[in-house]
Amino acid sequence: MTSKIPRQAQASEDSLLRIFTAPEDATSTLSIIEQRLSQDLAGFLGNSIAALEKPLSEIETDFNAYQIPIDPTFVSDYADEIMQNLVAHSVHTAAPSFIGHMTSALPYFVLPLSKMMVGLNQNLVKIETSKAFTPLERQVLGMMHHLVYQEPGRFYDQWMHSANHSLGAFCSGGTVANITALWIARNRLLKPQGDFKGITREGMPKALRFYGFDDLAILVSERGHYSLGKTADLLGIGRDNIISIATDKNNKVDVDAMRQAAKKLAAQNIKVMAIVGVAGTTETGSVDPLTELAELAAELQCHFHVDAAWGGASLLSNKYRHLLKGIELADSVTIDAHKQMYVPMGAGMVIFKNPELAQAIVHHAEYILRVGSKDLGSQTLEGSRPGMAMLVHACLQIIGRDGYEILINNSLEKARYFASIIKQHPEFELVTEPELCLLTYRYVPSAVQQFLNDAVTNQNESLVSQVNELLDGLTQFIQKHQREQGKSFVSRTRIKPAKYFRQPTTVFRVVLANPLTSEQILQNVLTEQVEIAQLDNEYLPQLMALLTSTLDKRCIDNDINQ
Amino acid sequence: MTSKIPRQAQASEDSLLRIFTAPEDATSTLSIIEQRLSQDLAGFLGNSIAALEKPLSEIETDFNAYQIPIDPTFVSDYADEIMQNLVAHSVHTAAPSFIGHMTSALPYFVLPLSKMMVGLNQNLVKIETSKAFTPLERQVLGMMHHLVYQEPGRFYDQWMHSANHSLGAFCSGGTVANITALWIARNRLLKPQGDFKGITREGMPKALRFYGFDDLAILVSERGHYSLGKTADLLGIGRDNIISIATDKNNKVDVDAMRQAAKKLAAQNIKVMAIVGVAGTTETGSVDPLTELAELAAELQCHFHVDAAWGGASLLSNKYRHLLKGIELADSVTIDAHKQMYVPMGAGMVIFKNPELAQAIVHHAEYILRVGSKDLGSQTLEGSRPGMAMLVHACLQIIGRDGYEILINNSLEKARYFASIIKQHPEFELVTEPELCLLTYRYVPSAVQQFLNDAVTNQNESLVSQVNELLDGLTQFIQKHQREQGKSFVSRTRIKPAKYFRQPTTVFRVVLANPLTSEQILQNVLTEQVEIAQLDNEYLPQLMALLTSTLDKRCIDNDINQ
Repeated sequence: MTSKIPRQAQASEDSLLRIFTAPEDATSTLSIIEQRLSQDLAGFLGNSIAALEKPLSEIETDFNAYQIPIDPTFVSDYADEIMQNLVAHSVHTAAPSFIGHMTSALPYFVLPLSKMMVGLNQNLVKIETSKAFTPLERQVLGMMHHLVYQEPGRFYDQWMHSANHSLGAFCSGGTVANITALWIARNRLLKPQGDFKGITREGMPKALRFYGFDDLAILVSERGHYSLGKTADLLGIGRDNIISIATDKNNKVDVDAMRQAAKKLAAQNIKVMAIVGVAGTTETGSVDPLTELAELAAELQCHFHVDAAWGGASLLSNKYRHLLKGIELADSVTIDAHKQMYVPMGAGMVIFKNPELAQAIVHHAEYILRVGSKDLGSQTLEGSRPGMAMLVHACLQIIGRDGYEILINNSLEKARYFASIIKQHPEFELVTEPELCLLTYRYVPSAVQQFLNDAVTNQNESLVSQVNELLDGLTQFIQKHQREQGKSFVSRTRIKPAKYFRQPTTVFRVVLANPLTSEQILQNVLTEQVEIAQLDNEYLPQLMALLTSTLDKRCIDNDINQ
Repeated sequence: MTSKIPRQAQASEDSLLRIFTAPEDATSTLSIIEQRLSQDLAGFLGNSIAALEKPLSEIETDFNAYQIPIDPTFVSDYADEIMQNLVAHSVHTAAPSFIGHMTSALPYFVLPLSKMMVGLNQNLVKIETSKAFTPLERQVLGMMHHLVYQEPGRFYDQWMHSANHSLGAFCSGGTVANITALWIARNRLLKPQGDFKGITREGMPKALRFYGFDDLAILVSERGHYSLGKTADLLGIGRDNIISIATDKNNKVDVDAMRQAAKKLAAQNIKVMAIVGVAGTTETGSVDPLTELAELAAELQCHFHVDAAWGGASLLSNKYRHLLKGIELADSVTIDAHKQMYVPMGAGMVIFKNPELAQAIVHHAEYILRVGSKDLGSQTLEGSRPGMAMLVHACLQIIGRDGYEILINNSLEKARYFASIIKQHPEFELVTEPELCLLTYRYVPSAVQQFLNDAVTNQNESLVSQVNELLDGLTQFIQKHQREQGKSFVSRTRIKPAKYFRQPTTVFRVVLANPLTSEQILQNVLTEQVEIAQLDNEYLPQLMALLTSTLDKRCIDNDINQ
């Protein structure tokens, strides 16, 4: 960190061997660089600014070189360079006012532990490169299994460390978890039988022919995560066979509509392979009626998967776990520890009710994953994987159930607080209530609210659509400017509220997972949005013009009719 | 790290908020714990022991609790606990004498950088949670693309940062990279046309029907990585449609045999979807004849993928890159940075020759990955992902081409050295020559070698099989004991050497990637193996008995014949 002018480093065998050898003491160059980096990181994280605004195209100019440099760079010079070019233009996802995505401040103890995890560089694919990390990962999966299914102690004694069983699979994130669950569901449905060697060996077309199905389908709420479409593509099922089921006014899937859809599919000889319940939709945070979905899955004799990638952490709250009632009926459950369990990025899990479930995807090799080994890699989609389970293990122990109880409850209650101030504010509309800690809303001047409500009451869909289109522009304008001002960040999405005749409607989306987000910050977010709205000279004037002309016309009509 | 007796921590909102806030200075409790952890890690890594031997079943007893603890644990107590239960029983994958797998010592600068990466907690799925990390990742992919394909500067100017293009995809490892490549190959082959909306939307059975194929197949060497079978399962192609092609005596795929197989498949109306060339097989380190495979792929009009997960790093050596000649003809190439590029676990990549390739798997959502955005997640299998690309970026800059030149050359030359001392040693047999830095060998007493060679010369397959079966037992015995003694570690696998009539043969497998592995260590590994062999009282006596009885019988036969 001494010089800003890149110095010429030279590659020699000695200097190279040195970088692979542990620095001797706290006064070594690397130790000093490490201290500087830690300070700079703390400085960045202590900053309240959500993100410095610099156009991406400008940032890209720092990353245009396409040739690997010939000469080595000194670590200190590199550290200087990335502090300027990378860290300064990173997103401060931990900022208390960064409430737009499922990120949060992290507990600081994960930093030294991460360094240790990276230093140990275990590979969880096999015991030979992970040893104690393998039972540790199995324990984490056991604890998460118990969190969901609450089986008695003998269940865990029997299965947690059993070579040919698994209570779940650790993976990089919820997408891989969902893929794994549905891969298993597909393979169990189209399993070996008689001469047929199973879809695993013979593939999808032969499997369908053997079982006499014309196609497979997956039923899920229209609010299902986009990873499900990706899964259907990957598994050879096809995106069109993800049957998207409408939601009710509370954004929960309509189970009757799902049952009807299933009947229609059966009539077409299309087999429902799985029902996916969402426990915390990405866009509105709603939880599907899991118990009813489990009943339907039983009727249809299909796999029941629950995508609780984000919402699953709420099971850690005794006060609120009832919101996910029925999750224990699922065959498999996705939970991301890197969302509301406060673990760094890269810690996803899928939990299996039945410890034999993963046998549908088991695979072996000659040099590892031999039959009967405890190598975790024989039942995972990924191959080589880091020991991220250690960070989940650490959080579960150091925070504990009592700690999570406080964190989760505060987060849900903060969302209820934010909803209440949105509702009280004359210029905002709460679009979806927070069931967990996620809500959506938008800025709507009070006159427009009144006008829009009247249009809704009069079932004037075309007028509602006109107003909403302008409001969409306004919402985008505010969200973009707020992001660019860098004091706070909310995200935006498009949903189809029942109230507005299911017209696509752009809304602010807020996730209140960060323990450091205060009520004051939430108030400031609204104040800032009101201020930004005043800068708009496109949508607001058009809205006012629309109001005026419609009201004028109504007066004229009234006059004529009188 | 003060007390061994777990103290009772209490969860309170204040104490929880504190753990989410940056420690103020170097004298804070967390800073002190961090220093202790760093020292302990350095201690572990400085140790020459490959792994403390404790039976897994004993280690598991430390990980039997299945309930998430109610009470929080102090960070210091937790640190004590994992140093004893986890770190002490981890595998020292960085030890210079741990030469059994594709692990190595890491350059130390990755540790502080990893801590920074984890602290920044960027999510690469979208710009909104990654900002400068997105162009950085694109640059790393561009540099790797250039390493493989060496396109001119204007190519990178045009595509490296283009929203709708990608020069590759970053992922957790080689398995996901291979899946991604073959997913793309499948989707490009079965693309939308006329009324058919493509396999992406309609799924595998309809796609095959539309294109009039009875099935798909993938052609690969019998030494192909096990992830390819997993891929075929996942993609709905079926493991039986991975057509395993025999290798020649140098463990390279027999291209003529592959051509014949392709003809047979064509006659059955089975379309070859892709040819996979292996550039560095996992078990013997051999590189397939890539140029010839590319020609065959062109004849068959199919995708040509090269799995260079491990061998790809050798492209960084100007001296040896010719060993991978033809790789630049591949449509896609898998390279793991966490193998011989000295990056920590979790850094895989697939590189695409054509920047439009990934459009075959593109997907969007309402809240992120919108059409036209630069969100990387729209063209990756995984969703949320950490900023691992930063560590690859750091290694490329800090080590540089000149540094890698030395590291890779030394590693290949060390393998040649090891091969030479194995060949010179009367009691060892080099089973496969090192083409890159991987070789296989086994311990065979010189009398047995002579006897076995005679049996081979006489084409006495049954006698060769008898000898090899006993040698397999001996190889396993030695490998297991060496691992348990903990001074060094070689792995073992089963291959089918042409010399031994393709009988499955167990061998030691050694990967010489660690820059700290000295010639002395390699000599010691052999010495130790000779010593362990003397402890065997099962296989050696049987081998000797077999030799004696066969030679006796031969003498008697000779007597009779005279």
